[in-house]
Amino acid sequence: MTHRVWNFSAGPAAMPEPVLQRAQAELLDWHGRGMSVMEMSHRGADFVSVATKTEADLRELLGIPADYRVLFMQGGALAQNAIVPLNLLPPDGVADYIDTGHWSLKSIAEVRKYGRVNVAASSADARYTCVPDRPAWRLSGDASYVHLTTNETIGGVEYPWIPDTGTVPLVADASSHLLSRPLDVARFGVIYAGAQKNIGPAGLTLVIVREDLTGRARRECPSVFDYAVQAKAGSMFNTPSTFGIYLAGLTFQWLLAQGGLAAIERVNIAKAEALYAEIDRTGFYRNPVRQSDRSRMNVPFFLRDERLDAPFLEGAAARGLVQLKGHRAVGGMRASIYNAMPLAGVLALTQWLREFEREHG
Amino acid sequence: MTHRVWNFSAGPAAMPEPVLQRAQAELLDWHGRGMSVMEMSHRGADFVSVATKTEADLRELLGIPADYRVLFMQGGALAQNAIVPLNLLPPDGVADYIDTGHWSLKSIAEVRKYGRVNVAASSADARYTCVPDRPAWRLSGDASYVHLTTNETIGGVEYPWIPDTGTVPLVADASSHLLSRPLDVARFGVIYAGAQKNIGPAGLTLVIVREDLTGRARRECPSVFDYAVQAKAGSMFNTPSTFGIYLAGLTFQWLLAQGGLAAIERVNIAKAEALYAEIDRTGFYRNPVRQSDRSRMNVPFFLRDERLDAPFLEGAAARGLVQLKGHRAVGGMRASIYNAMPLAGVLALTQWLREFEREHG
Repeated sequence: MTHRVWNFSAGPAAMPEPVLQRAQAELLDWHGRGMSVMEMSHRGADFVSVATKTEADLRELLGIPADYRVLFMQGGALAQNAIVPLNLLPPDGVADYIDTGHWSLKSIAEVRKYGRVNVAASSADARYTCVPDRPAWRLSGDASYVHLTTNETIGGVEYPWIPDTGTVPLVADASSHLLSRPLDVARFGVIYAGAQKNIGPAGLTLVIVREDLTGRARRECPSVFDYAVQAKAGSMFNTPSTFGIYLAGLTFQWLLAQGGLAAIERVNIAKAEALYAEIDRTGFYRNPVRQSDRSRMNVPFFLRDERLDAPFLEGAAARGLVQLKGHRAVGGMRASIYNAMPLAGVLALTQWLREFEREHG
Repeated sequence: MTHRVWNFSAGPAAMPEPVLQRAQAELLDWHGRGMSVMEMSHRGADFVSVATKTEADLRELLGIPADYRVLFMQGGALAQNAIVPLNLLPPDGVADYIDTGHWSLKSIAEVRKYGRVNVAASSADARYTCVPDRPAWRLSGDASYVHLTTNETIGGVEYPWIPDTGTVPLVADASSHLLSRPLDVARFGVIYAGAQKNIGPAGLTLVIVREDLTGRARRECPSVFDYAVQAKAGSMFNTPSTFGIYLAGLTFQWLLAQGGLAAIERVNIAKAEALYAEIDRTGFYRNPVRQSDRSRMNVPFFLRDERLDAPFLEGAAARGLVQLKGHRAVGGMRASIYNAMPLAGVLALTQWLREFEREHG
């Protein structure tokens, strides 16, 4: 039997085992064609059928309205930090950004290259432990869009609500929680996500964009990153990450077989509740995020005494619980519990939390 | 036994079977770690060791000088068409481009977004059947760089020589022949290539850049595509295509085991000679490219009567010779015979060429 661990990596992250098994079985010979999916022309009938089904399954999972285009791009969310303003922000325009921590700060730093940015709200004063309450937001009114990082992968802060911004389009970096729960896509102008959490392998980037927001790209936007160009070309203006699209397709099929996003959300709620309950139980562990805004996907936590970090991680690894070290920017621990992590893996972790506390508490 | 065909796709293209077999064996459990390479943090020691070895092996294969940086980027060669001027062309500068057909025309169209372009030479009048002779080039003198497409994948035209441009840096889109032969990297300022021919899966882009050419990016260059930013970050400013880098690494190991680029070049010469000899034998088939400039990697050919195209392709497919249809821009046939195509595959094709001619000639 294949040796597998419980992998809590924040991304690139664990993938559903049935997806990997299927990819493994087909790696040299996809559907009797005598070649790998990786070896096929992206314009051939076989690969086009893969890409078409991948998009259709995603549309079914998220209930994407007909006036939204699905684009498979490259460069990850960090590339989109530039690609969004290159597509949506006129040189003399202003964009509103909500600052909830590490990844929104990256987005804000990048957009400054392209125009004026108004940081309409920030939870910096609360040390990024919450989503700023909507009444405190100071929106420009004339912004080209409002940008959110709807789940902060490092801080472990997740929007539990979708803000109303009237006619100003909402743009969301949803990299680390897209597909973990149902989402009302129609509330957004653009949703983008690096694939390497809940979608597929690193290198693939998913963009869902409302059709009327395409066709506004600035001249200096590279053609391959122009939403209108890629929408027109069915994401094949350039050669896409074909293996990434194939694996995303297998992942979407796996999600549909689980019962779709409502079903996976129930599992994700159960996983998050079990883990936060254990963290909160005695105060030996600590998660600083406001209860309502705690991420279901990324759970940072700290031991009371950081000299215990190393033995905690060693003992975890010995039990097959790996990639639990917190991001270097914040330290401590972080358990990322994306869709591919079953409840059993989370329970193995909570058991270790309890055991370690008994030994060192 | 796994069913495999002879796959002549221009890209995404056939990969070395031992590379795919190794990837298959390790897909759920890399080196006993209990996870796929795809599931590892790109910043963890395990993946960093993969990326480091991949770069070292590439440096050994190409003999890359120490003052060149190797970048693993995303977006393919078409993205580089914009990224090159964003990194190297000042807003008031001029860039020289040599037009040898389909892909250089794409590069020229894209660079016009960023500044003045001087098409210093073109083989359009020769219907793109050759590389323009050096004496006919009208270089600007003050250009920021001279851009070549060193192998035209559709036209099947390959530079058999490296032009001397004095102190003006030479920039090469070498997507479809890089690693097919030894190359004097020191003659170039930048060499870039989409991976999906001789390197790895689509979605990975290789950039080799002379150090002094980094750090000149224009403000509007997205950070993830700024050569200096990625050079400083070891290609990990954003999450790279980790599985792509891993497969490129396996491909480089395979190339080294074949004896390196001098050895693979001998095989590639033998393959190309066998195929062109059969095409030229009677005039039943035709390749229009000037003898000296014929590509060793992409061999377009035409049947005397295009009504025979369909039966030719059907018969080929029945013999396990696939993806031979020419690019829609030119029609006819095209056999791409990259490193992963063994001589046996080319001989199976020449045998079919002869057999088909006997039946229909």
